[in-house]
Amino acid sequence: MTKQQDNQEIVLAKRPSGVPDQSTFEFRDIDVPKLKEGEVLLKSIYVSVDPGMRGFMDKGDDDDRGNKYELGKPITSRSVAQVVESRSKKFTKGDIVYGRLDWKKLQSFNADKLEKVNPDLAPISTALSILGVTGLAAYFGLIKIGNPQKGETVVVSGAAGSVGSVAVQIAKLKGCKVIGIAGSKEKIDYLENELGIDKGINYKKTNNMAKALKDACPNGIDVFFDNVGGEIADDVLEILNKNGRIVICGQIAEYNDENPPKGPRPQHALIQKSARMEGFVVFDFKDEFEDAKNQLSKWYNNGQMKYKENLIEGFENIPSAFIGLFSGDNIGKQLVKISEIEKQ
Amino acid sequence: MTKQQDNQEIVLAKRPSGVPDQSTFEFRDIDVPKLKEGEVLLKSIYVSVDPGMRGFMDKGDDDDRGNKYELGKPITSRSVAQVVESRSKKFTKGDIVYGRLDWKKLQSFNADKLEKVNPDLAPISTALSILGVTGLAAYFGLIKIGNPQKGETVVVSGAAGSVGSVAVQIAKLKGCKVIGIAGSKEKIDYLENELGIDKGINYKKTNNMAKALKDACPNGIDVFFDNVGGEIADDVLEILNKNGRIVICGQIAEYNDENPPKGPRPQHALIQKSARMEGFVVFDFKDEFEDAKNQLSKWYNNGQMKYKENLIEGFENIPSAFIGLFSGDNIGKQLVKISEIEKQ
Repeated sequence: MTKQQDNQEIVLAKRPSGVPDQSTFEFRDIDVPKLKEGEVLLKSIYVSVDPGMRGFMDKGDDDDRGNKYELGKPITSRSVAQVVESRSKKFTKGDIVYGRLDWKKLQSFNADKLEKVNPDLAPISTALSILGVTGLAAYFGLIKIGNPQKGETVVVSGAAGSVGSVAVQIAKLKGCKVIGIAGSKEKIDYLENELGIDKGINYKKTNNMAKALKDACPNGIDVFFDNVGGEIADDVLEILNKNGRIVICGQIAEYNDENPPKGPRPQHALIQKSARMEGFVVFDFKDEFEDAKNQLSKWYNNGQMKYKENLIEGFENIPSAFIGLFSGDNIGKQLVKISEIEKQ
Repeated sequence: MTKQQDNQEIVLAKRPSGVPDQSTFEFRDIDVPKLKEGEVLLKSIYVSVDPGMRGFMDKGDDDDRGNKYELGKPITSRSVAQVVESRSKKFTKGDIVYGRLDWKKLQSFNADKLEKVNPDLAPISTALSILGVTGLAAYFGLIKIGNPQKGETVVVSGAAGSVGSVAVQIAKLKGCKVIGIAGSKEKIDYLENELGIDKGINYKKTNNMAKALKDACPNGIDVFFDNVGGEIADDVLEILNKNGRIVICGQIAEYNDENPPKGPRPQHALIQKSARMEGFVVFDFKDEFEDAKNQLSKWYNNGQMKYKENLIEGFENIPSAFIGLFSGDNIGKQLVKISEIEKQ
């Protein structure tokens, strides 16, 4: 391997207590790797930073799905990259791919663990938002599990988030009355005025959520798309309709396994309402990803589906972008743009 | 109306505190009613006594499905009766019917609120067990909601009860490994030796239910048919398999609405396992009752479905039969036989 000054990685320098800061991270100069058979060399284009990554920075236990970061090893996050060199039949030079990549300017990667991004569907950064796992989670969770029917009332918690903002739009497209719960005036404005939901509820400014939900949903609730859990879920259960459906979205899977929070047991209400509470992760629907992406991109290209992304430029600004998630109150997906696509 | 000494009713004389005794009930001589158009005169044949009725003896609040008994008014329970006289086109003299009837020897009843019992399917008392709402609850809950597949592991709580004992047998007929949870050695023996389940767990003699379930279910649990709720349900959730299904059966609907018990929130586990928790009441499947009765009676007549009933004879012994539910540890449906069928 030849030492090259233009490759860099960002590793976990120490495990943060509380909110991470710059000392959590360390930049290192690294070599450009040589490829093995079946690998591709990737140049990072867009890197996604998500609040959920904070959990991966803690010391690991044997969690099923927890990919805890190792000290001194690169941070990983969902990223879009371009193939610079290929020793795999799956990809050729210039292809755009999506995967959970290291925070590196250039890296080798097993081609089998990457998905191709089709630049004809929509801007390639949407592979990290509406056409990525968050958009797909909204799509499958709402349509396959929530199964909302025209005229029904759909409530979405975390409604301005990356999953919720897609879920509310799909629910509107399905002809439902849509109530969104979020935590700031800006988010409520965005939901009501830009995404066109029927009513937003700012839970931080609402003393009595049960009453606010009752007022907003005079016909009860048919589908609850739950990104959050907790007491709001209890309030929803109270006014869930007969045959109601509660979609438990993978977003809150970072809960500590050992100590699930306690609350009123839902069993009684589920019987009373002949209702269903169902969890899922987006990969349960892997076989249908392509169809869903086609539908989502069609809605996007028809102007029926909006999304918002906040872009910060430069590899050196990835840690700042991540740290900023915990102070600001941004609406939309936070992305870092590392480099331009090279046209082939 | 003519006074006739041979008609009697049993009314709620006072609301019991704790276990009911004879002073809870009062026998009254009553007239034989005259029929209005659309009514039938019924002679009670079999009266069912169920532990759940105890809840109806408490002072009522506005519960959805709670039919609280009124002081000085007849107790009601699920019963099989014969039509003695008819002013309805729906039934003719001699027909056997099922309904929630008053504890009366003879009574008039709205024909629209009765279901016909087909004596050709199975003994007519099965309308209060395997061919009645408890058997139907087991059938629909297990098949439609639990949807067990051959080779899967099914756990049933309250397994020796009127619903559970049918559920375990259907699960065996579907080719599943079946674990039953019950509260006495006699019940476990009955489940293992007479109903042929793979393993019974006596929860009253088991200190560590989580471990007992793990030992009994080395391949995890695919379907949990829950008649009981509470901490056992938490233990099951721990070893529920991917795509597991938890059937919440209407049996526990007597919980006090105002104070649902607290426990670990199931949401996290439901996501981790892409699992479903679903409540139902048997009347959700009303349109399919006939098909289900045909299937259940076929199994019964082929010797593939067993049931056990305990018969006490005589109208005057209904209160004793009911009181006995709270002291004895009987297996099988407790019935009181009031009179013989009159052949037409």
